[in-house]
Amino acid sequence: MPEAFEQDYTLQQLQQVTQAINNGQFVQVRRILAETPPCDTALLLESSPNKIRKQLWQLVDPDIQGDVLEELSEDVRIGIIHQMDPELIAAATEDMDDDDLGEVLRSLPDDVYQDVVGAMDAQDRERATQALSYQEGSAGALMSTDTVTIRPDVTLDVVLRYLRLRGELPDGTDDLYVVDKENQFIGALPVATLLTNSPDKVVSELMDDEKETIPVSMDESEVAQLFERHNWISAAVVDDNNLQLLGRITIDDIVDVIREDAEHSMLSMAGLDDEEDTFAPVLKSSQRRSIWLGINLLTALLAAFVASFFEGTLDILPILAVLNGIVPSMGGVAGSQTLTLVIRGIALGHINNTNQKFLLGKELAIGALNGILWSLLIAGVVALWQWDFVLGAVIAFAMFMNLLAAGIAGASIPIILKRMNIDPALAGSVVLTTVTDIVGIFAFLGTATLFLT
Amino acid sequence: MPEAFEQDYTLQQLQQVTQAINNGQFVQVRRILAETPPCDTALLLESSPNKIRKQLWQLVDPDIQGDVLEELSEDVRIGIIHQMDPELIAAATEDMDDDDLGEVLRSLPDDVYQDVVGAMDAQDRERATQALSYQEGSAGALMSTDTVTIRPDVTLDVVLRYLRLRGELPDGTDDLYVVDKENQFIGALPVATLLTNSPDKVVSELMDDEKETIPVSMDESEVAQLFERHNWISAAVVDDNNLQLLGRITIDDIVDVIREDAEHSMLSMAGLDDEEDTFAPVLKSSQRRSIWLGINLLTALLAAFVASFFEGTLDILPILAVLNGIVPSMGGVAGSQTLTLVIRGIALGHINNTNQKFLLGKELAIGALNGILWSLLIAGVVALWQWDFVLGAVIAFAMFMNLLAAGIAGASIPIILKRMNIDPALAGSVVLTTVTDIVGIFAFLGTATLFLT
Repeated sequence: MPEAFEQDYTLQQLQQVTQAINNGQFVQVRRILAETPPCDTALLLESSPNKIRKQLWQLVDPDIQGDVLEELSEDVRIGIIHQMDPELIAAATEDMDDDDLGEVLRSLPDDVYQDVVGAMDAQDRERATQALSYQEGSAGALMSTDTVTIRPDVTLDVVLRYLRLRGELPDGTDDLYVVDKENQFIGALPVATLLTNSPDKVVSELMDDEKETIPVSMDESEVAQLFERHNWISAAVVDDNNLQLLGRITIDDIVDVIREDAEHSMLSMAGLDDEEDTFAPVLKSSQRRSIWLGINLLTALLAAFVASFFEGTLDILPILAVLNGIVPSMGGVAGSQTLTLVIRGIALGHINNTNQKFLLGKELAIGALNGILWSLLIAGVVALWQWDFVLGAVIAFAMFMNLLAAGIAGASIPIILKRMNIDPALAGSVVLTTVTDIVGIFAFLGTATLFLT
Repeated sequence: MPEAFEQDYTLQQLQQVTQAINNGQFVQVRRILAETPPCDTALLLESSPNKIRKQLWQLVDPDIQGDVLEELSEDVRIGIIHQMDPELIAAATEDMDDDDLGEVLRSLPDDVYQDVVGAMDAQDRERATQALSYQEGSAGALMSTDTVTIRPDVTLDVVLRYLRLRGELPDGTDDLYVVDKENQFIGALPVATLLTNSPDKVVSELMDDEKETIPVSMDESEVAQLFERHNWISAAVVDDNNLQLLGRITIDDIVDVIREDAEHSMLSMAGLDDEEDTFAPVLKSSQRRSIWLGINLLTALLAAFVASFFEGTLDILPILAVLNGIVPSMGGVAGSQTLTLVIRGIALGHINNTNQKFLLGKELAIGALNGILWSLLIAGVVALWQWDFVLGAVIAFAMFMNLLAAGIAGASIPIILKRMNIDPALAGSVVLTTVTDIVGIFAFLGTATLFLT
């Protein structure tokens, strides 16, 4: 079954390793790990409960610990690093890419950071300072400074001889960068052009001098959008002001940004930290999740408080209590559909002030259409179930109003939050459900109070 | 402000274009579009309401329509294609990559498909048949057949001369593929190796003969995991059985798969079609979303039905009706946190039968911890608010039970659904909220009936 061979292979390894650890056969685990490439070891660690993960890490060959750390997701990496001695951290970061080095160092507590930097040699310490000089989440923090640069006035033959002399190219080198004497970026010579043209042509004739560059302070999500839109494999990073070449960003780091951005929306809509590791310790996970539960408890109490205004009505008509959950629930679902789409639209750069009015109108129209459909249906069900046609009309009216409210709230809340610089994915759903709960309860119990008591 | 230059630029264009269309200045729009690269035109189309989108498309130069179509997201692309004449579709697909061609053709209704293929020349028709011969969502459907192959027994110099003769390389060529006479894949020669070694070395000495290949039937999500884990830029696709080289997959197509997979979870958890275009026509959107609302209405009615068993209790104690929403709401939030993490863990390949028992235990422990915390809190609030300590104890007990149930349900539902081959992202949250609603109502109203009436 070739379709699943890779996953099966990893799964099999995982089972072997877990069993061996449980049996205390550490030598065998060490042997298995020695044959496992760093990227698979990273997957093994990420798929292991915390206790097994710690034991596994002790058995990873220190020479490849750096490579494994580079492959780990941030949360898991931080957990492991915080258990390592500063000297070992310094050793493991020696061969790391600049961007991973920066990420590791940024995650360290202050005192550990001092010890780690203290254990580095002068050259690495300089690299560390350099890596930390760019803001987290900026192009600078993503880039590697390892670039291949050439001059515009040489022939391809000279370039070819230079590359042979240089040996090894940085991973993902699809462009050589053409710079002037001040190290200003003036163009890119694609490796494909170098390979398919006569060696006596001159670089400046063939280079692409319209190739876009990335300003070092650009936000990483925006960099990712550029990569995605232009199908780039790598791009040059330049100083914001004088256009000096500072480094390059490669698609493998962008893939991480794209996955993280996409996951961020999904996880924060459920009130989860986007770094959350599936196998984090129980206490840490409980703590992280409890904030969201606390906020939700407040909104649920607020809804209960609103319902308490109608205690008199509920006293007379207990059937209202039975039906009271339906309208808020439908509003919540309809609202999150709109909210989810709008949050995604904002993330993809599709929503802006030329089309947001249109969007609001569209979502209002959908709310009205679905409102008509579901209020007719619920009216029928309730009228037949309770044999009470006024009650049917009351719940239908409340349903219609709440689906309209859900459309408006779902479309406008993320846009307003975004303008206030609040992350719509994180705050949007709690604000939304508060609106749909309260509108739903008011509309249902309020109308019932007017017409049924 | 270089930080936002690109988005501002696109935004400005969008405003210009929208205004020009609204004023009927079609000549000017055509002029702006002629200066816009296909990827930005695609963004313009994706960011425009349906009516403007149609008008814009009419003004795109037919010569680049194919390039623009390649850049569009599937839902938007299908919408546009269904308005085009078969001849124009055939013309636009002429220069398309095989994978995009397959995607376009697969999305056509049968009769249009016949007309489009009828309008193609013999060579394109053959390409079309080829592109359609692989299953959607498989490596075959992602690959392009444009590869550069070399023989193992030649020198690098011969390779270099061959490439100059060949001209142009396919986009993202970081490896040349070494094949034998039967076209079986025997290794990869990285372009970087070709450039940094002496021209008189022989290919077989330098090639990487351990480079993994992708079986043509492998699922695209699995291919994406391989790319992500190994930081590949391209990979060779081979026949499942005889290992013949069939084509190659490049990272730009993988980036789309990664984004789609990540978005799929988020969108389907909100009951949305993962192809949904933010600016789809109202009727189409309402229809798509109404299925989910219908399912939700059923579960809300089920919860109401459960509550109706306790109508007698609610009649005596209307305060129960006021508080009845709190416990199900907290269970729903806690359960979706667990559900979201487990769904992500499954998608990343971190969860499997060696660790799922551990996971269930962990989520149960978190449920218990958060259960204790929030039941104490709600007990205090309700006892003080209503000055009724038994009522406080009742709601605390119900809260604790429901948070436990949420932990168990959130962890086990996606794993069970996955085993039944049902998409956990799509069906998980509806099953979950049904569980937490019903357990919550039963626990609260049931305990109240026992102890308060």
